[in-house]
Amino acid sequence: MTFLQVFAIAIIVLISQDLNAQSLKFSNDNIQLSFSIEENGTPAYSLLRQNKKVINRSSMGFTIAGTGELKKGFELIGTDSSSKEETWQPVWGEVENIRNKYKQLTVHMRHRTTGVLLDIVFRLFEEGVGFRYEFPQQEKLKYFIVTDEHTEFAMDGDHKTFWIPGDYDSNEYPYSTTKISEIDNMAMVTTSTEIAVRKAPDPEAVQTPLMMKTDDGLYINIHEAALRDYPAMQLHTDRKSKTFLSSLVPDAVGNKAYLHAPCKTPWRTIIVSDKAADILQSKMILNLNEPSVIKNTSWIRPMKFVGIWWEMQTGVGGWNYANTEKSIDANGKLIPSGKHSANTANVKRYIDFAAKHSIGGVLVEGWNVGWEDWFGNWKEEVFDFVTPYPDFDVKELRGYAAKKNVQLIMHNETSGSATNYERRMDTAFRFMNKFGYHSVKTGYVGRIIPRGEHHDGQWMVNHYERSVAKAAKHKVMIDIHESVRPTGMHRTYPNWIANEAARGNEFNAFSSGNPPEHETILPFTRLMGGPMDYTPGIFKLQKYSADTTRGVHTTLAKQLALYVTLYSPLQMAADLPGNYEAKPDAFRFIEDVPVEWDDTKILYAEPGDYLIVARKQKGAPNWFIGAITDENKREMNVNLDFLEMGQHYTATIYADASDAQWKTNPEAYIVSKQKVDNTTTLKFKLAEGGGCAVSLIKTSK
Amino acid sequence: MTFLQVFAIAIIVLISQDLNAQSLKFSNDNIQLSFSIEENGTPAYSLLRQNKKVINRSSMGFTIAGTGELKKGFELIGTDSSSKEETWQPVWGEVENIRNKYKQLTVHMRHRTTGVLLDIVFRLFEEGVGFRYEFPQQEKLKYFIVTDEHTEFAMDGDHKTFWIPGDYDSNEYPYSTTKISEIDNMAMVTTSTEIAVRKAPDPEAVQTPLMMKTDDGLYINIHEAALRDYPAMQLHTDRKSKTFLSSLVPDAVGNKAYLHAPCKTPWRTIIVSDKAADILQSKMILNLNEPSVIKNTSWIRPMKFVGIWWEMQTGVGGWNYANTEKSIDANGKLIPSGKHSANTANVKRYIDFAAKHSIGGVLVEGWNVGWEDWFGNWKEEVFDFVTPYPDFDVKELRGYAAKKNVQLIMHNETSGSATNYERRMDTAFRFMNKFGYHSVKTGYVGRIIPRGEHHDGQWMVNHYERSVAKAAKHKVMIDIHESVRPTGMHRTYPNWIANEAARGNEFNAFSSGNPPEHETILPFTRLMGGPMDYTPGIFKLQKYSADTTRGVHTTLAKQLALYVTLYSPLQMAADLPGNYEAKPDAFRFIEDVPVEWDDTKILYAEPGDYLIVARKQKGAPNWFIGAITDENKREMNVNLDFLEMGQHYTATIYADASDAQWKTNPEAYIVSKQKVDNTTTLKFKLAEGGGCAVSLIKTSK
Repeated sequence: MTFLQVFAIAIIVLISQDLNAQSLKFSNDNIQLSFSIEENGTPAYSLLRQNKKVINRSSMGFTIAGTGELKKGFELIGTDSSSKEETWQPVWGEVENIRNKYKQLTVHMRHRTTGVLLDIVFRLFEEGVGFRYEFPQQEKLKYFIVTDEHTEFAMDGDHKTFWIPGDYDSNEYPYSTTKISEIDNMAMVTTSTEIAVRKAPDPEAVQTPLMMKTDDGLYINIHEAALRDYPAMQLHTDRKSKTFLSSLVPDAVGNKAYLHAPCKTPWRTIIVSDKAADILQSKMILNLNEPSVIKNTSWIRPMKFVGIWWEMQTGVGGWNYANTEKSIDANGKLIPSGKHSANTANVKRYIDFAAKHSIGGVLVEGWNVGWEDWFGNWKEEVFDFVTPYPDFDVKELRGYAAKKNVQLIMHNETSGSATNYERRMDTAFRFMNKFGYHSVKTGYVGRIIPRGEHHDGQWMVNHYERSVAKAAKHKVMIDIHESVRPTGMHRTYPNWIANEAARGNEFNAFSSGNPPEHETILPFTRLMGGPMDYTPGIFKLQKYSADTTRGVHTTLAKQLALYVTLYSPLQMAADLPGNYEAKPDAFRFIEDVPVEWDDTKILYAEPGDYLIVARKQKGAPNWFIGAITDENKREMNVNLDFLEMGQHYTATIYADASDAQWKTNPEAYIVSKQKVDNTTTLKFKLAEGGGCAVSLIKTSK
Repeated sequence: MTFLQVFAIAIIVLISQDLNAQSLKFSNDNIQLSFSIEENGTPAYSLLRQNKKVINRSSMGFTIAGTGELKKGFELIGTDSSSKEETWQPVWGEVENIRNKYKQLTVHMRHRTTGVLLDIVFRLFEEGVGFRYEFPQQEKLKYFIVTDEHTEFAMDGDHKTFWIPGDYDSNEYPYSTTKISEIDNMAMVTTSTEIAVRKAPDPEAVQTPLMMKTDDGLYINIHEAALRDYPAMQLHTDRKSKTFLSSLVPDAVGNKAYLHAPCKTPWRTIIVSDKAADILQSKMILNLNEPSVIKNTSWIRPMKFVGIWWEMQTGVGGWNYANTEKSIDANGKLIPSGKHSANTANVKRYIDFAAKHSIGGVLVEGWNVGWEDWFGNWKEEVFDFVTPYPDFDVKELRGYAAKKNVQLIMHNETSGSATNYERRMDTAFRFMNKFGYHSVKTGYVGRIIPRGEHHDGQWMVNHYERSVAKAAKHKVMIDIHESVRPTGMHRTYPNWIANEAARGNEFNAFSSGNPPEHETILPFTRLMGGPMDYTPGIFKLQKYSADTTRGVHTTLAKQLALYVTLYSPLQMAADLPGNYEAKPDAFRFIEDVPVEWDDTKILYAEPGDYLIVARKQKGAPNWFIGAITDENKREMNVNLDFLEMGQHYTATIYADASDAQWKTNPEAYIVSKQKVDNTTTLKFKLAEGGGCAVSLIKTSK
């Protein structure tokens, strides 16, 4: 008799003992889940980790339009249990093999008064639990509208919490670190005028991935997995009871989700450990997603890229071909401003640079007509995605890039007009295929059209998936900016190569920027769902803009370390070629650092404070280390015991200079080399806002 | 000095006389328009016809989001005037030549407090006036949102009015005939459960074209022309003051229109005459539309068609291939119900029938997968528009139809999911091109997606135009059902061959039907904007359905007459082939009647009572007459003086039998022949709910 058989019998016994209040226990070595249908028929769960309280009694349920509230009045009509253990290989990722081991409990319930059938499926992993609701095929519910989901996450204390406001349209906020009882996003939302579109009606709402730390050292992360055909879940905070309540992003008429039974919600995920590193090592969210729907994935290739982009962000050039949409000559043609960055000659310079430094791709923004009048007007017809400006020779560049073995990366900014993009998408992807573009960066800067919809609502969640599926059909990789934050869907669509969906490095260009702690929080929050196109690698960290008060709030060494700490299979070297050519010794790290990995070790981690990550290059014996700190300087010893025993490596260490400091002296760095092996311990001295990057290249002897 | 020069001077004199209240007069032989900016800066107009009051002092203006109410506080800053007289040839139509003669007055205004510039353009025709608002390019207003348009139509009495409810999503109501003071749509909206989607929040709102008759015999029609990038105008009734106020159909968030200056609204049209026939003869709405944007129109060919459609409406067959979406076998395939009408063999029978009787087209509904589960669930992904059911052999039928010289007509039902159609439209039209479809019937039965949008709002108005423009690009003619009612846009897009957009003959199949007066009102209302795919020609007028209480509420002769009275370049012979073959002498009229005309005479007309129309076949000397009455029988003499003098014609008269009556004996008809010339007077005896159709074929001698 297996464990699961025993378990199943145990459940049955429990059921037969009490027909009103029914209680089930479900556990593995680490995690204990309790589920009960309480006396009034309310389904509720709680969670322990090694007997420490993680989630207190939390109720579950829905309100369905026409049907009413389905929170109490349920009865248990059966259970199923199963388990799984497998190892699978991602098309790309932080590790070569991913272990997927879980035990599953399905609770079948019937709502007494309405007769509605509802299942809840729990998957217990070593590091946490995922659960989702499933509506089986049934007579009582066919097509239906979710008015509200009532999933609680009752915390057992006033934890330290890393949060951004529960905004329906943006996740580009810096993180606030407060106790649960102090969550109030109003000031942040009101003052964040650098964010184009904000809609955060609930001052006590926050977004997931939500990272917490308890007073007794437990790290808890709440998010969701496999967000499909459903709105993003945000969390309303009951500050008094320290309870988070699911708050789904509404549609144009205030509904949350349009469903068709049989159907299932995304997984609600709770990852917990007494080690912060375990949170980052977890593959639970990815495991809760479906395997790849793309059979032949050979065309999906991670890469680094440079781009015609930072020069616009910093005001050196512009996206526009003309000064304004009114700069028109007697023939109705735009008058060139002379500052248009995406011109053929300039693109060739970037191609030359990429080819010289073995950078795979060149992103070109501002290549297509429409930029003179694209922003901020809720305008539906903006770009057509296929008409280049007169100074951008798409055919010529296709040939030039191919000759240099560099890929041009397409850019499709939609300005939030998803309807316009959808009707032109066929044409846009055919254009990419015709002109040799293998990847596209899409963007949604602006209020969404269909008007009334939001970036994080069900309609847009489906839109992003449609764009990814269409890209896959055309063998194009896609990197979506200003989208809903990811939930591991790149397992299912490995061509979904990255997202922005958080406050990227760009905010240093056009706003007061990101605080030094920002990049130490991102891996625990935004990156829990998938890779981020953060666009690291700025070398000229001050005075890059006409507004000389602007600065990137890290040292140069930390910019290098981000290539390791912020995982992405698509990594930009974001600065201008000239700034790289001025510091070839530092740029060497960007040239060397890979974007595909066989293994990842989280060596030190504390959200908001520091992070040190070591990764092994895919298909090669080399390792790379990234170390970053917040506004505090730190000294940390890194033991290289993960290196192969008895082998020799050359460590190239890109460190903060002794007088480096993010604000006063950010570009001071030292590159040194030393021989190391797996007995070596390296001492990292991280400046305030600093970091350290190390390449460990195996030597022949 | 021309008239217009004199006129311009007259205006200037008036302006200089009074700087506060400014008043302009503008007139032709029939119509006198007064426009004034009143003392408080309110723009207002009034209208006389030969000194009879048509529109009393009516104010004009807008509310613009952010800017505020622009109703008073205007000042006149200039005027322009011009005139035009031209004759143009429509690609298809009721007449060969259309005379477009008007005088134009443009009033340039500035709003004193906001500085907003607003022009009003009046075009004065012999039969009425069209006016529109134009927002010139200006600093104060670039992108802006119309919250409300405040255009009044103050009537000079409690006129008899033919109206349907001001519903944002449907125009498929029967007409109510009441005084203005009695307008109340609530009972009609509430009880019209046969209409799939109704949204009529204002019980005192009606739709245009709104037809009225004054106590002293003036016929007044209010509508709009060239509805583009703007919502449909409905009219709120102030029953006390007998004033109609423009009420624009809102979008998902309650806004009305998103505009970008320079821009203009559709024309608001007032057509007026003391003869009802003049209303029908008017080409003012067409003249207010822009000329064709399609250069080569040789592929646009009016035609008659039969279709696999009435057999589903009457329950003989079905759109569905299987009984329900759950009729699935072990392999997941649909189990045929055996009642699927759109099967290859049946389509071939219709093709054979069409070929035999020189009917140009065969419409096939229910050919593509999705019909098992398409209706009523606000479902976004319904049809893909390119996947036939297994029993519909698209390639085989392409060849078969071509061999028989018959065109298959595509059917794209969207179920209201416009987003789904837009993203699949490219593929759908390529499919049509590939398989030889030269025309498509589209449909919008269901709540609109984008959710919160309405059939008659700006977004959908743009959607319909996009579908028409895309169809034109693919050389496909389009007939849109459940769309906003037309406004003469077929001048601009002659491939926009027809619309339903009113209560068609189909309502006789699945509801209590259309009252006998219905078709005498349609030409004065719905058809003012453009042709209607009414689907006439039902021969089996009773017991065609399992529900034997259903009946078509006309006689058979009246069904024939509709081919003349209800103009459309796309006319269906809607009944089953078998029902036509049973009455070949009557069917002969449908075979003979053309769909293209060189001339049209409205011989008798009274809305709600009767209509007799004679039309001359395009490029041939033959004439056709249609005569219809409401529930009353009538005798009317028709003088054939429109025939060519000295020529001989064979008149074939399809008349109600003496005992015919729409309810008791609708299928009793008599076909007779006689020789006639232009001195002949025919006596028409129309039964209750009856009609008469006549072909006048020129004989060699």
